[in-house]
Amino acid sequence: MKLTSLQDLYLHTLKDIYYAEQQILKELPGMAEKASDEELRQAFTDHVAETETQIGRLEQVFEMLGETVDSETCPAIDGILKEAKKLMRDLEDPEALDAGMIAAAQAVEHYEFTRYGTLASWARTLGHSDAVALLEASRDEEIGADVKLTRLGEAWVNRQAVA
Amino acid sequence: MKLTSLQDLYLHTLKDIYYAEQQILKELPGMAEKASDEELRQAFTDHVAETETQIGRLEQVFEMLGETVDSETCPAIDGILKEAKKLMRDLEDPEALDAGMIAAAQAVEHYEFTRYGTLASWARTLGHSDAVALLEASRDEEIGADVKLTRLGEAWVNRQAVA
Repeated sequence: MKLTSLQDLYLHTLKDIYYAEQQILKELPGMAEKASDEELRQAFTDHVAETETQIGRLEQVFEMLGETVDSETCPAIDGILKEAKKLMRDLEDPEALDAGMIAAAQAVEHYEFTRYGTLASWARTLGHSDAVALLEASRDEEIGADVKLTRLGEAWVNRQAVA
Repeated sequence: MKLTSLQDLYLHTLKDIYYAEQQILKELPGMAEKASDEELRQAFTDHVAETETQIGRLEQVFEMLGETVDSETCPAIDGILKEAKKLMRDLEDPEALDAGMIAAAQAVEHYEFTRYGTLASWARTLGHSDAVALLEASRDEEIGADVKLTRLGEAWVNRQAVA
């Protein structure tokens, strides 16, 4: 599909992140199940509810635009999740698996927060001010999720240092 | 390949980011060529030299470990770049193309900076203190590149607002 304006690009990117959120939602329960650390398992479980909220916000944004809710394959999230799943298969040590899953989840969060930041900026330019707050709320949740993962990663590293 | 320790995971991730940097290096000249905005073109051109420096740092880290410099396919960067290239083909409006390329480049920078941050943290845990400074230097450059792209994205948005 050819994109001839910022409005086209905005709608395309909304469909792309809508697809991405759906794929993330599918992977989170498996990541929670594989986590050894209780707090990490809880973080993945909590992120299921956050992801559902973010999907709901995107549906509101489509509605505000008068567009049908739709998704478009997002090769970036497919690649990031493919890498995460391969790592989960290859990592045989449960402690190292936790570290690998924290790193993989941080790659997901970073992808999402840069996308939501961009979308909020484009929504503002396009005059879709009602969408800006929704997109910024999701962006801020993703930043919060990344900060939490950094803290869990550091706690993991500190446990290794004293082990 | 099965990974049974943090050391294995660290080496695997070094090979993964080494591959990623090589792929990014291949795409940057094409992005610079397609940029309409002079400052954006310069940012992509400058990032070629930064990427070469980062590749050199990774080679030093392999050497410090007594390991052969090697790469391993990184599905995440392949996906992120596949998405960027598709966008560059589909975007017919030069102004919107700049906005799309800024967003795509930010997804690349975010992937790299979370990976370098993780690697620096693991290097510290594993006692490879000589590698920490190198990995942190690359992480900080990626953060700087993302900040610059955010500024260019905002300048782009402001130009649209007054156009």
